[in-house]
Amino acid sequence: MVIVMDSEATPDHIDGIVDVVTTAGGTAYVTRGVSRTIIGLVGDVQQFETLDLRAMPGVSDVLRISVPYKLVSRENHVSRSVVRVGGVPIGGEHMTLIAGPCAVETPEQTLAAARMARSAGAALLRGGAYKPRTSPYAFQGLGEAGLRILADVRAETGLPIVTEVVDAGDVELVAGYADMLQIGTRNMQNFALLQAAGEAGKPVMLKRGMSATIEEWLMAAEYIAQRGNLDIVLCERGIRTFEKATRNTLDLSAVPVAQQLSHLPVIVDPSHSGGKRDLVLPLSRAAIAVGADGIIVDVHPTPETALCDGPQALVGEDLAELADAVRTLPALVGRTLASAPEPAVAGV
Amino acid sequence: MVIVMDSEATPDHIDGIVDVVTTAGGTAYVTRGVSRTIIGLVGDVQQFETLDLRAMPGVSDVLRISVPYKLVSRENHVSRSVVRVGGVPIGGEHMTLIAGPCAVETPEQTLAAARMARSAGAALLRGGAYKPRTSPYAFQGLGEAGLRILADVRAETGLPIVTEVVDAGDVELVAGYADMLQIGTRNMQNFALLQAAGEAGKPVMLKRGMSATIEEWLMAAEYIAQRGNLDIVLCERGIRTFEKATRNTLDLSAVPVAQQLSHLPVIVDPSHSGGKRDLVLPLSRAAIAVGADGIIVDVHPTPETALCDGPQALVGEDLAELADAVRTLPALVGRTLASAPEPAVAGV
Amino acid sequence: MVIVMDSEATPDHIDGIVDVVTTAGGTAYVTRGVSRTIIGLVGDVQQFETLDLRAMPGVSDVLRISVPYKLVSRENHVSRSVVRVGGVPIGGEHMTLIAGPCAVETPEQTLAAARMARSAGAALLRGGAYKPRTSPYAFQGLGEAGLRILADVRAETGLPIVTEVVDAGDVELVAGYADMLQIGTRNMQNFALLQAAGEAGKPVMLKRGMSATIEEWLMAAEYIAQRGNLDIVLCERGIRTFEKATRNTLDLSAVPVAQQLSHLPVIVDPSHSGGKRDLVLPLSRAAIAVGADGIIVDVHPTPETALCDGPQALVGEDLAELADAVRTLPALVGRTLASAPEPAVAGV
Amino acid sequence: MVIVMDSEATPDHIDGIVDVVTTAGGTAYVTRGVSRTIIGLVGDVQQFETLDLRAMPGVSDVLRISVPYKLVSRENHVSRSVVRVGGVPIGGEHMTLIAGPCAVETPEQTLAAARMARSAGAALLRGGAYKPRTSPYAFQGLGEAGLRILADVRAETGLPIVTEVVDAGDVELVAGYADMLQIGTRNMQNFALLQAAGEAGKPVMLKRGMSATIEEWLMAAEYIAQRGNLDIVLCERGIRTFEKATRNTLDLSAVPVAQQLSHLPVIVDPSHSGGKRDLVLPLSRAAIAVGADGIIVDVHPTPETALCDGPQALVGEDLAELADAVRTLPALVGRTLASAPEPAVAGV
Repeated sequence: MVIVMDSEATPDHIDGIVDVVTTAGGTAYVTRGVSRTIIGLVGDVQQFETLDLRAMPGVSDVLRISVPYKLVSRENHVSRSVVRVGGVPIGGEHMTLIAGPCAVETPEQTLAAARMARSAGAALLRGGAYKPRTSPYAFQGLGEAGLRILADVRAETGLPIVTEVVDAGDVELVAGYADMLQIGTRNMQNFALLQAAGEAGKPVMLKRGMSATIEEWLMAAEYIAQRGNLDIVLCERGIRTFEKATRNTLDLSAVPVAQQLSHLPVIVDPSHSGGKRDLVLPLSRAAIAVGADGIIVDVHPTPETALCDGPQALVGEDLAELADAVRTLPALVGRTLASAPEPAVAGV
Repeated sequence: MVIVMDSEATPDHIDGIVDVVTTAGGTAYVTRGVSRTIIGLVGDVQQFETLDLRAMPGVSDVLRISVPYKLVSRENHVSRSVVRVGGVPIGGEHMTLIAGPCAVETPEQTLAAARMARSAGAALLRGGAYKPRTSPYAFQGLGEAGLRILADVRAETGLPIVTEVVDAGDVELVAGYADMLQIGTRNMQNFALLQAAGEAGKPVMLKRGMSATIEEWLMAAEYIAQRGNLDIVLCERGIRTFEKATRNTLDLSAVPVAQQLSHLPVIVDPSHSGGKRDLVLPLSRAAIAVGADGIIVDVHPTPETALCDGPQALVGEDLAELADAVRTLPALVGRTLASAPEPAVAGV
Repeated sequence: MVIVMDSEATPDHIDGIVDVVTTAGGTAYVTRGVSRTIIGLVGDVQQFETLDLRAMPGVSDVLRISVPYKLVSRENHVSRSVVRVGGVPIGGEHMTLIAGPCAVETPEQTLAAARMARSAGAALLRGGAYKPRTSPYAFQGLGEAGLRILADVRAETGLPIVTEVVDAGDVELVAGYADMLQIGTRNMQNFALLQAAGEAGKPVMLKRGMSATIEEWLMAAEYIAQRGNLDIVLCERGIRTFEKATRNTLDLSAVPVAQQLSHLPVIVDPSHSGGKRDLVLPLSRAAIAVGADGIIVDVHPTPETALCDGPQALVGEDLAELADAVRTLPALVGRTLASAPEPAVAGV
Repeated sequence: MVIVMDSEATPDHIDGIVDVVTTAGGTAYVTRGVSRTIIGLVGDVQQFETLDLRAMPGVSDVLRISVPYKLVSRENHVSRSVVRVGGVPIGGEHMTLIAGPCAVETPEQTLAAARMARSAGAALLRGGAYKPRTSPYAFQGLGEAGLRILADVRAETGLPIVTEVVDAGDVELVAGYADMLQIGTRNMQNFALLQAAGEAGKPVMLKRGMSATIEEWLMAAEYIAQRGNLDIVLCERGIRTFEKATRNTLDLSAVPVAQQLSHLPVIVDPSHSGGKRDLVLPLSRAAIAVGADGIIVDVHPTPETALCDGPQALVGEDLAELADAVRTLPALVGRTLASAPEPAVAGV
């Protein structure tokens, strides 16, 4: 931690800082520059943070040097993690395709989408039973009935399930059905939900908040990790910018940056940022090429009747092209496509 | 609702739209332009929204004409609302000052802050018992013990209480103590929380999400209103932009814009956007001058020891200047300062 | 300047930094922390900046401590400056109203707008003869003919002229007519134009780039100052954000922030950010209340026929309310309205 | 063009619109909805735009249906264009690598960088002689001496030259040396420069403004096209967002979006957005995979001594990996790497 004094700080101000830091068990190294004095602190940073040094007289700025997240940081955990979801790996040398419908609507639609997903190369099934919607008048999901449909489709196809949970009070219920809990962009800083997910005993996919910095995203992951769960997968899904030609701006730079800062796997959702089917395929290819540990894509047997985000769901020729991309591109960045588990019964 | 066809749309595409709209009980008016055809729809917009017209062949864009929120819109509720919190009005001809500590720390600190607030002109006391913090290592609030302190201070000073609730599961408990529930910026789209707050029987202050558009903010208010609670106060608190000289960019234009679109009162939090004490005073003055229905400001008897956001809490000379501003400025924009209720016992 | 080493930096890396800094005539103070080493540099910062220390092995980050602008900084120029434009002061205890048409269209329209401006309290006349327009198909201004109209209207009304210049090649011509050169938001980093304006011998109003940080804005001002011209007025006019309800988001926090960092006066343009007439008045009041040294507002005798930005030009009742605001509000923030010079001939 | 009336518009307001449109030679189709009336206009949109319909009584909004750029739009020019630069194609089935130093410093450094570029697969040489720098104290480029160095290196290596021009007054000079003029992000709306570049008789690479929407970018290209020059290549280089872990946020979605809207080739600069060497390679791969018509990358023989942007220049192993990527990835998206012309003399 470094304290920058303002240009009118007096020797008394500087002594004041040194005293406070020393009392807190740290050591303060004072460097007097031409126009400013800086003070380097050595010791327990979390202790220093409780001192509110920024409010002390003569202080212009306080610069944090070390990262504020510990458990998810790569600083103390150099090798990158592999998270296993129902036996399917995410991370390491793998590139994992997760696919399925935006929302679970009916058993038939979900099963059809799961089969499309599996034959396109998906190893995990996505599908929402609880949908956070901007408008209270939009379809909000089937709730537990949707979870039961997902479980049936998993039995039939062998694909483990990734599904969203939107309230701390629902975590136990959803974790009873899901192989991986998804926390959505609007809930990235719903701290009660993060903590509940950290205690649920299931891997968690944490979507980046639409206006969250990478640091805040890692801090949110730290909330989950702090409750004893390090099986966390980060998911970049587009950030909010001034550009309106796309629903959000997919920040692919965030993939290598987050992979450098954290040992957690980082995947990409190319469906929700573009909001249009014809962007999903190029962005999926770009996500694989940038080195993502996986991609999560909407597919739907009949997008024109979908209750949620139909315009971006893949089907037919587009899905065939995605299947081709996930089979050819990963090798060029040193990865192999993760395989789906076999179903218990011959369902596919 | 208006459908814009793309420049290569065929007559069949156009007929397809007309059929779908007609089947849904609406009427479609086709206008053929030089390069594009547009189709105006008349009928039940919510019904049209379920049709996913955007995914139909030949469609380039679907433009919504009416606002997507009904209950909070000014379109059907022309006069602006006054919300009463423990008898104190927000809205109408009033300018209401809400002040208090960022976090409840001790009975003494809370009482001292409440007395400072009251003598500066505040009619309502703010103070957090549940604090959503970016870092899991930061002070998270006293919980119910903090609520009890607030209730004691209310009894002593007469000031009704505004306090934050961060999880749907806590709403009933918090509503048992609070005069107004506050929903914070990170929870603006925590829909379970919005719905629970809508049923709690207390007024709600809804802070704008730090990357929420004004429309999304009003949609979030609509979630509360839909559960039967129209006692909602909107609070602008700064949005996330590229500028880093301030923690957030206070969007004062949002005040007149939201007042035009909605009948709900709109107040401003000038403390959290700037993040620095010396910005609070000019931004408070600007908020009153722009026509806000109130301002909510951090005060603390000893900011240098505050457990939360000390650097922005007002005290001493700054607070005296704020007291001066809230007494002189409202008259210039046709408002009067709302008065605090008297305490049951003579406490101040 | 402070160098933060990464957590795997070796003693050789640290020695390498110390050698380079010492060779460059500086002194390096090494502080070894628990997880990181930091090195404080004392000496000539501009010299250090040429060293590209960030690219040296073992370096994680380089933190600049002092501001990168010198001439416009308040650090070396504590009292705030007053800039005089044709005798009219901007800055100090004054609040200066600048008003006029967005674009000069005809002598009659310009004279009528100038008279409206003057009677509303304006001391300076704005009006564009060169208009930078997003579309090549929009009205681009009258050029020199427009400058001549402005000069005639100045003779008639006594109001000194503020007008935009958009290309370095036009600076001499425009400076021959104008009392103050305006550099627009799209040209804030047109460095050839900044340098030419710095040599033109006239005060310059520098609008903030629509995506410029306050630091970049001050750096752009430094380009002008470097050429010997310190008669610079900064103008906040709204920044680009995700919000689309307004054309831009007026960043009123930038006023006190820029006033703390720089000795230059800071004014506000409330007309162009909102883009709508009914936002101009509340934002003008807010700008005065926040402590701006002036405001610049569009007025037009017949907005419905204006060739540029008619929807935001004030007229009639709105203008009367503005006149009222500029006469009553400044006193509450310790300022007085700057007066217009008398015309040489009795023109108003 | 569609006019949305507000909910209180009277029949007189509607008739007023119809009259104005009819007088302007257009036809107005009125559709009365439940809460709003909309009016579809058929006729000359540019004529309608001069009417300032938005300011008319009863009008709530005016929605433009057709795109505001004509010459660069794909609507009237369905096949995508190939631009030739000194014989090297950009666009079509090609993927063109442009590489070289950020700034021309010496003949030796430029020649060494050009040879590195060529052996990595580059067909065009980039290098700046005029550098727009945020700080007036940073290296501003060698000017014409730099252009002469570039011309010598072209003679030696055969690589055509792409170089930046920053002021309309320099266009003729720079065009005398360059094979392609580059217009930088800060000058994207320097309209005098765009127009001069449009008349210079050389292809132009137009970088996206760091806060420009895709529509504004295409409007800027339209300024060049209007002067008779359609040899324009668009270059995405990162936009300004709230995220500070990278210098800018590379918007790869902009590539397919711009390719759908415009017939012009779209390339990507992965060096300047990340600002760090270890992001250049993954972002280059992503840019090729997303379908860019080319990439432009900084290389430098000795990045640690570079006068400009050394931390992001490729060298050694990183450059070898780039060379590998440009040789293997394009085939997977249906493209082939464009070849460099042979030098007139055997220079490489």
